[in-house]
Amino acid sequence: MIPVAERINGMFSDVKKAIKDRDPTTIHQLARSQAEAGAAYLDLNVGPGIADPVESMQWLVTETQKATDTPISIDSQKMEIMKAGLEVAKGPVLINSCKSLEVLDEWAALALEYDASLVCLTIDKRGIPQDVDTRLELAAAIVGTAIEKGMETTKIFIDPILFPVNVDQKQPNYLLEVCRQITFISDPPPHIICGLSNLSQGTKERGLINRAYLTMSLAAGLDSAVIDVLDKDLMDAAITTEMLLNKQIYSDAFLKAAHG
Amino acid sequence: MIPVAERINGMFSDVKKAIKDRDPTTIHQLARSQAEAGAAYLDLNVGPGIADPVESMQWLVTETQKATDTPISIDSQKMEIMKAGLEVAKGPVLINSCKSLEVLDEWAALALEYDASLVCLTIDKRGIPQDVDTRLELAAAIVGTAIEKGMETTKIFIDPILFPVNVDQKQPNYLLEVCRQITFISDPPPHIICGLSNLSQGTKERGLINRAYLTMSLAAGLDSAVIDVLDKDLMDAAITTEMLLNKQIYSDAFLKAAHG
Repeated sequence: MIPVAERINGMFSDVKKAIKDRDPTTIHQLARSQAEAGAAYLDLNVGPGIADPVESMQWLVTETQKATDTPISIDSQKMEIMKAGLEVAKGPVLINSCKSLEVLDEWAALALEYDASLVCLTIDKRGIPQDVDTRLELAAAIVGTAIEKGMETTKIFIDPILFPVNVDQKQPNYLLEVCRQITFISDPPPHIICGLSNLSQGTKERGLINRAYLTMSLAAGLDSAVIDVLDKDLMDAAITTEMLLNKQIYSDAFLKAAHG
Repeated sequence: MIPVAERINGMFSDVKKAIKDRDPTTIHQLARSQAEAGAAYLDLNVGPGIADPVESMQWLVTETQKATDTPISIDSQKMEIMKAGLEVAKGPVLINSCKSLEVLDEWAALALEYDASLVCLTIDKRGIPQDVDTRLELAAAIVGTAIEKGMETTKIFIDPILFPVNVDQKQPNYLLEVCRQITFISDPPPHIICGLSNLSQGTKERGLINRAYLTMSLAAGLDSAVIDVLDKDLMDAAITTEMLLNKQIYSDAFLKAAHG
């Protein structure tokens, strides 16, 4: 699994305050703790209601990179903010995300310019699909367009959009089917990513729901997720799942070995 | 999920002692606690090294049925023990198990005689298969034979045999594929069952391994398992998985509702 750590996000009050005050302490601490917990990317999102999102993103990128070498994921759907973040970023970046098939040309060009990976939501001008087939059709269109533009499929992350289970209980199961089938779109297939915490939004059993669904979706072909890497129970579930899928070598100390 | 509760088994020292001493207290207590924890069947196994296994099974069946109305699963591969257990059993029984395709005719006849359900291991004279295809071939042969004998597929439980993960790390993943494909054998398909605890035998993270694999296999089509129903974390994982698969209705209190 490619864990994308979700915690440096202005939706959290400590991060919002740190951004407003330009106080790097919280950011450095979250960057280090998430990197140590096994993040492959640190997602950076300035959050809503920030007066200067462009400068704030540049500040977040710069401060995060002072604290750790772990690659960053720049989380914005605004081209201006993304470009500003990429300008100051070092190393391999995850662009999170291209919000619609109609703007993919422009975002794929940006990913190529910066040798970045690119998260693409399965959305087009018709809106967010609620079924399996439209998601797969869009995933295929995204991969086709990105390849045409010169991208490698290994740099494409398809996000088939996971809804909260308390909004539509059919969706989690649909997403599993989407995961199973996306692997047939191309060889090698694109990565499949989801925003896991969204699933359990507003429920009373967030930990249990997140753990069970991450396990199910990894077994169905998902290979990346935006998650709380500081949730040790969740990380343990993911590690155990990958061991059972024969993607991590079993030993009596497999958990410890994976945590490093 | 159809949980088959594993705890009344002579492999556990308290049960072995209870059987030897013909002391019903432990059996009654385990029968009640497992029934309350959500068991669909209570598995009864006299265990190894018992001088009078036939009489012991009859005693176990009788005592268990004094304590609860929850159906029982008679766990033996010896026809003599099975018949003795069935003679004193009330209500719908699970026969666990027919150990080989070569003796299925006889065991299917017994199941029909007692209107029982029947667990069939995917084994024939060649031995226990290690791959996906032979397991599927045997599952199809079992279903075909049992239907010919007059059984309904809804009374057949295919057990594709789960090995300990520390013995062969490829097997858990193979079993998931077997689960996914068994559902295509017939309409309606047979049940799929596994002995979950076997997977984590001899490992240091039994709880984690059992929870992750039960979740993965339920999502792959497994619908029954011999498990420790007294392990609340395991039952919670199973309930949450079935809710996410849209097989249990979501509410904020879905866990409590399922535990009853």
